[in-house]
Amino acid sequence: MAAVTFPFSTDTYIERRNALMKNVGSGKILLLGNQDASINFRDNVYHFRQDSTFLYYIGINLMDLNAILDCDTGEVSLFGDDASIDLIVWMGNQPQLRDLGAKVGITNVYESKELKNHLTGDIKYLPAYRDKHELNLKAWLDIQELKPDMELIHSIISQRNIKTSDEIAQLDIACTLSAQMHEFVLRNAKPYMMEYQLVGLASAFAWNHNAQWSFPPILTKNGQTLHNHYHGHQINEGDLVLYDGGIEIESGYCGDMTRSFPAGKKFSTMQASVYQIVHDSYQTALSMSKPGVYYKDVHLAVAKTMVEGLKALGVMKGDSDEAVASGAHSLFFPHGLGHMLGLDVHDMENLGEIHVGYDSSIEKSTQFGLRSLRLGRQLKQGYVITIEPGIYMIPELIDKFKSEGLHTDFVDYQELEKYRNMGGIRIEDDYVITENGNRRLGESLANDLASIEEMRAVALS
Amino acid sequence: MAAVTFPFSTDTYIERRNALMKNVGSGKILLLGNQDASINFRDNVYHFRQDSTFLYYIGINLMDLNAILDCDTGEVSLFGDDASIDLIVWMGNQPQLRDLGAKVGITNVYESKELKNHLTGDIKYLPAYRDKHELNLKAWLDIQELKPDMELIHSIISQRNIKTSDEIAQLDIACTLSAQMHEFVLRNAKPYMMEYQLVGLASAFAWNHNAQWSFPPILTKNGQTLHNHYHGHQINEGDLVLYDGGIEIESGYCGDMTRSFPAGKKFSTMQASVYQIVHDSYQTALSMSKPGVYYKDVHLAVAKTMVEGLKALGVMKGDSDEAVASGAHSLFFPHGLGHMLGLDVHDMENLGEIHVGYDSSIEKSTQFGLRSLRLGRQLKQGYVITIEPGIYMIPELIDKFKSEGLHTDFVDYQELEKYRNMGGIRIEDDYVITENGNRRLGESLANDLASIEEMRAVALS
Repeated sequence: MAAVTFPFSTDTYIERRNALMKNVGSGKILLLGNQDASINFRDNVYHFRQDSTFLYYIGINLMDLNAILDCDTGEVSLFGDDASIDLIVWMGNQPQLRDLGAKVGITNVYESKELKNHLTGDIKYLPAYRDKHELNLKAWLDIQELKPDMELIHSIISQRNIKTSDEIAQLDIACTLSAQMHEFVLRNAKPYMMEYQLVGLASAFAWNHNAQWSFPPILTKNGQTLHNHYHGHQINEGDLVLYDGGIEIESGYCGDMTRSFPAGKKFSTMQASVYQIVHDSYQTALSMSKPGVYYKDVHLAVAKTMVEGLKALGVMKGDSDEAVASGAHSLFFPHGLGHMLGLDVHDMENLGEIHVGYDSSIEKSTQFGLRSLRLGRQLKQGYVITIEPGIYMIPELIDKFKSEGLHTDFVDYQELEKYRNMGGIRIEDDYVITENGNRRLGESLANDLASIEEMRAVALS
Repeated sequence: MAAVTFPFSTDTYIERRNALMKNVGSGKILLLGNQDASINFRDNVYHFRQDSTFLYYIGINLMDLNAILDCDTGEVSLFGDDASIDLIVWMGNQPQLRDLGAKVGITNVYESKELKNHLTGDIKYLPAYRDKHELNLKAWLDIQELKPDMELIHSIISQRNIKTSDEIAQLDIACTLSAQMHEFVLRNAKPYMMEYQLVGLASAFAWNHNAQWSFPPILTKNGQTLHNHYHGHQINEGDLVLYDGGIEIESGYCGDMTRSFPAGKKFSTMQASVYQIVHDSYQTALSMSKPGVYYKDVHLAVAKTMVEGLKALGVMKGDSDEAVASGAHSLFFPHGLGHMLGLDVHDMENLGEIHVGYDSSIEKSTQFGLRSLRLGRQLKQGYVITIEPGIYMIPELIDKFKSEGLHTDFVDYQELEKYRNMGGIRIEDDYVITENGNRRLGESLANDLASIEEMRAVALS
C-alpha cells in the first residue's frame, strides 16, 4: 500500500481554503484532481501526478478525487470512492477517504457519483490542461466550451505566488536534492559516454532518493537546441555538456537547475570566455533580485552584461543600451531569465503563464526574446524564482537573423562565424526573494568556472 | 534532433496496410497517432509513446500524426504539420513529413487542418484509450458517442496476433534486454536496500541501453499484492523480492519478465518449497504450449500442478481435478497464466482484451481466477505469449474465502495459517509459438531455484 503523507498541518490546508473562499467571495469553486494517464492502453499508465492546485488546497496525493469549496457557506466537500474488496486483493489495503479527509480538515466526504448533484449554482473552475478534465467539465456542466473563472485564477495565483516558510522548507529539500543530482552527473560523466547514459546517472540518483524528476531533463552536447530531449549522441573530449534537470519530492515541490560543463577536464578557450560572460550575467541577476524590482528589469540588465561581454569578444558592437533596446542580444539569449517555481517547475503555468508572471502594472513585450520572459512582474518577498541566463550559438537563428539583415549595427556576423559551432551554455539556480534580497534554495553547487573545472578534473583523474 | 528510425522495410508497411484494407473491404480506416500527454501543465509532458497500431501500419514514431486508409481506392493519406522556423530554433532541425512518408510508402501527405475534409463517407475507427482521441473523434465526426468498428478491430487483431519473423527479431532484442535488466537487479540487490533503490538499478540499466520500461515495474517485498507499484519498504534478510518488469526498445516492442528471489543468499525452507511448485507449474506450461492447444487448457493444467504441489505441502487436499474445476486453486493463483505480447506489453489490450485472447470457439469464464485469464484461445504458430505462473499468500483473500466458507473441501485453512505471511512468488518468461512447440525469446535468464540462489550467493559474497 502506498502511504499517503501530508507535508503540512491540517490547519494549514484549512487556512489556505478559507483565504481562497474569502478572496473569491461567492459561488462554488470546483477543484479537479488528476486521474491516471494511459500510455498505450487504459491500464498501462504513466507515473501518477496530482494536480498542483489540488495538492495545495486539498493535499491528498491520490487519483480520482474532486472537491467543491462553497464560498457562500464555507463548506468544503470531497468526492471519491473507497477501494472495493476486489481492488484490495490486487492493490493491497487502501486508506479510507474519510480518514484522509480528516487529515486535511474535510469532514464532508461523498462518493464520486454524488458530485454531479452538487454542481448547481455558480460553478467556478480552472483551465483544463488534461483532456480528461475537459471531458469531465463538459459532461458534468453540460457545456460545449470551457470558461475558466478569471477571478478564481487570480486569487489562486496571488496566494500561491507567495511561498510560506513551510513551503520554502519543502523547496529547500527539493533544491538540495537537485543540486546533489547535478553533482552526481558532473562527477560521473566521462568522455565517450552516450548522452542517455548520463540520463541514466540522473535517473538512478532520483530513484535512489525515492524522488521523481520535476520535468524530462535536457541533457545534451547540443545545448544550443533549447528544448532538446534527444539523448542519442556520444559526448567527446572538447564537447560541452548542458544539463537542465530538477528533482520533485514526494510533496510535489520542485527544483530546477542547469549546469554546463566540459566533457573533458577543461573548457576550451572559446567555451571559457563565453562561460565567464554567462557567469557575470548570473551575478548581475543575483545582485539585483530583491523586493520591488521588476524582474523584466533584471532580465534587461542581464542582457546588457551579456552585450558588454560579447562586445569584448568582438561578436557584438555598438552602444550596449541601444543593442539591448533593439533586442540584438536575443540572437544569443532568446529565452527569459527565469520563472516562478513551486509545486510546478513553471509554477502555475496551467493557470496561464501571463497571469503568473505579469500583472496590470506591466505588459508582456512582443519583441523576440523578451516575449519568452515568463516572469516580468515586480518581485516580492516570498517569491521563488529561477535565475537562468544562457548564451547559445544557434546556427539556424544566426542564419535567419543574418539573411533578414537584423541587428547589423550590433552584431559582427563575420566574427560570429568563429563561434557558430560552440553550442550553448546556461547556469541556473533557484532563489527565494527575502526581505532585502534573495537566498539560494537548498545546498548550493558551485557554478563558477574554476569550480566546474575542478570537479571535472577530479572526475577524470 | 531526434532521429526517426524504422525497424521494417518500406514494403513491409505497404503490405501490412494492403492486407488490412483487403480484409476490411470497404470504407475509410482512420488511424489516430498519439499526442504528448501533459503532467501538471500543458508543456510539461510524459515520455512520448506512439500508438501501437499506428506504429504497426504507419511506422512513424512522431506525435500529432493521423492517417486514413481508403479501402475502396487503396489510397493511404498521412496528416501532420512540418516544423516552423520558430520551432526549429527551439527544437533543432526536424525531419520533413514528406520524407518520413516516403520511408513507409506514403506519398499523400497533407497538413493537419485538411484531415476533417477527408472524413466523409464510412469512417471506421478503433476504441479510444486516450482522452484526446475521444475529444478529437467527437469533434471531427460530430458525434456524441464513439462506435468503434468491430470488423476493423478483428482484422487488426488477426493480423497483429501472428508475429512475423522481423517482428520476432525485435522481440528477441527486447527480451534479451529485459533478461539483462533482471540479472542486473538480481546481482546488485542487497539486504537493507530500499525497494526504490532496486527500481533505481532497473532504471539505470534501461537508460544505459537507451531503452524505456514497457510498463511501470512491480518491484516489491510484498509480491502477494499483485498490482503493487509502491517501493517504500526496506528489503531485509529473509524477505522475498518479486520483480516484474520489462524493456521496451525504440521500435516499440516489449519484453515482460518476472523473477522472485531471496533478499539474502537463500530461500527459506517454506519459500523454497513454494518456489519449487511455481517452477514445476512453469515446466507444465512449457511442455504443453504449442499450436492447436487452447491456452485455457494450459492454464488449467498449470493449476493442477499447483494443486498437487500444495497438497504435498498439506495446504490443499482432496481430488486435484475437482479442486481445479471448483476454482479452489484461485485462492493462491488468482490471475491468468499469460497474455499476448508485442508492441504492447498486453498486446492490443486497447482493442479489447476479450477480442485478443478469445474467439468464437471459446468463451471467457466468469469464475474467480479464470476470469482474469487474458488469453484463452487456441495457440498458433507466431503467437508471442507470456508464461507466468505464481503462488501468492494474500491475507485479505484468505480471510475472505475462509469467512465465506469457500473451498473447504480443498483448502486446509488451519495448515494454511503457517504460510499466511510468506508473500508471493512468480516466474515469468516470454515465448513464441513455433511450428511444433515454443521458443524462449531472447537470451534467457535462469529461473530454477538453484540458479537463483547461486546468483544471490555471488551477489552477496
